[in-house]
Amino acid sequence: MATNITFHAPALTKTERSTLRNQQGLTIWLTGLSASGKSTIAVELERQLLHDRGVHAYRLDGDNIRFGLNKDLGFSEADRNENIRRIAEVAKLFADSCSIAITSFISPYRKDRDTARKLHEIPPPGENTGLPFVEVHVDVPVEVAEQRDPKGLYKKAREGIIKEFTGISAPYEAPEKPEVYLKNVDLPIKDAVKQIIAYLDSQGYLPAKKE
Amino acid sequence: MATNITFHAPALTKTERSTLRNQQGLTIWLTGLSASGKSTIAVELERQLLHDRGVHAYRLDGDNIRFGLNKDLGFSEADRNENIRRIAEVAKLFADSCSIAITSFISPYRKDRDTARKLHEIPPPGENTGLPFVEVHVDVPVEVAEQRDPKGLYKKAREGIIKEFTGISAPYEAPEKPEVYLKNVDLPIKDAVKQIIAYLDSQGYLPAKKE
Repeated sequence: MATNITFHAPALTKTERSTLRNQQGLTIWLTGLSASGKSTIAVELERQLLHDRGVHAYRLDGDNIRFGLNKDLGFSEADRNENIRRIAEVAKLFADSCSIAITSFISPYRKDRDTARKLHEIPPPGENTGLPFVEVHVDVPVEVAEQRDPKGLYKKAREGIIKEFTGISAPYEAPEKPEVYLKNVDLPIKDAVKQIIAYLDSQGYLPAKKE
Repeated sequence: MATNITFHAPALTKTERSTLRNQQGLTIWLTGLSASGKSTIAVELERQLLHDRGVHAYRLDGDNIRFGLNKDLGFSEADRNENIRRIAEVAKLFADSCSIAITSFISPYRKDRDTARKLHEIPPPGENTGLPFVEVHVDVPVEVAEQRDPKGLYKKAREGIIKEFTGISAPYEAPEKPEVYLKNVDLPIKDAVKQIIAYLDSQGYLPAKKE
């Protein structure tokens, strides 16, 4: 009987999982200044994907990552790199599971975002192709973000209480060729989300809209 | 118009996500010796959950974790603890997303598995309750596992090539009160999976079987 146990039914492939779930996995990587609107966009995007398309998305953000998986990390350069690397690896696991990972982090450095993209290009174990990586630049001038400042972080950065704050005392390296570019000054959130979904549709990443 | 951007639609709650997906999130934590059958069980469990119940599960195992998220970790005690901590955090994210995380690691130390369980008891951000943690002990005597030895690891451990090998030169601390106890000597895999699914049903964790 013991031979029964070593019999390996083949594991579900990504394609099989994808067909059964009627959904393709991918990562949507939002990048932009603090208070640019990333989280608000992520929340509305998740809602529309599930409500209107019946596809499952999950947001990875400071709340569920910084106080969980990455709570051992500080803000040194090495730790910031490791922060982004782990987020990218987790997003890739969600994408491999045929969910849509929506990451919402400032991720100011081009090198780090490129690392995240490259990780997605490496096929998961047992697969032949990588996973789609959709970089979305939420572009808001620092003056606008600073005026919003819902958490008072810009104020603290100006006062020197927070060091190396992106846009004030640390650089933000804008993406050169993001898949989606949101120039969202004066842009209602719904339009921003519409633009992301239009891109996903243009690539055939989503099932048809439910009637 | 800028006020539109700071408008926050409420984020999907776990309950709302769960209703829309007709699925509840949880973690199934398999533990047992190398070659006890954990991976085979995980593969078959994932398949049956998706095929027969239409619920989504995703396996976290050595293949997609050790060469990805945890590739920076070695085998020191600190690194082994950190390995399990990260796996538990990622499983919790999947469970919070309303998927079923199936983890398949030897996880020989009671302390580490308890850490994983306790992390699941902490409600995710914005939630009031923790996430179900189902510990499954795949119990096979070391003699049986050693006889199977599909990867030749026990042989290498006996030869001293692999140090601190669970069951040979390092302890396996059996769970005291696992939610599911699989005494799977001579047990065909399908029966093991049936036992796990029966437990999930007994707790009301799964939607009804599809006709």
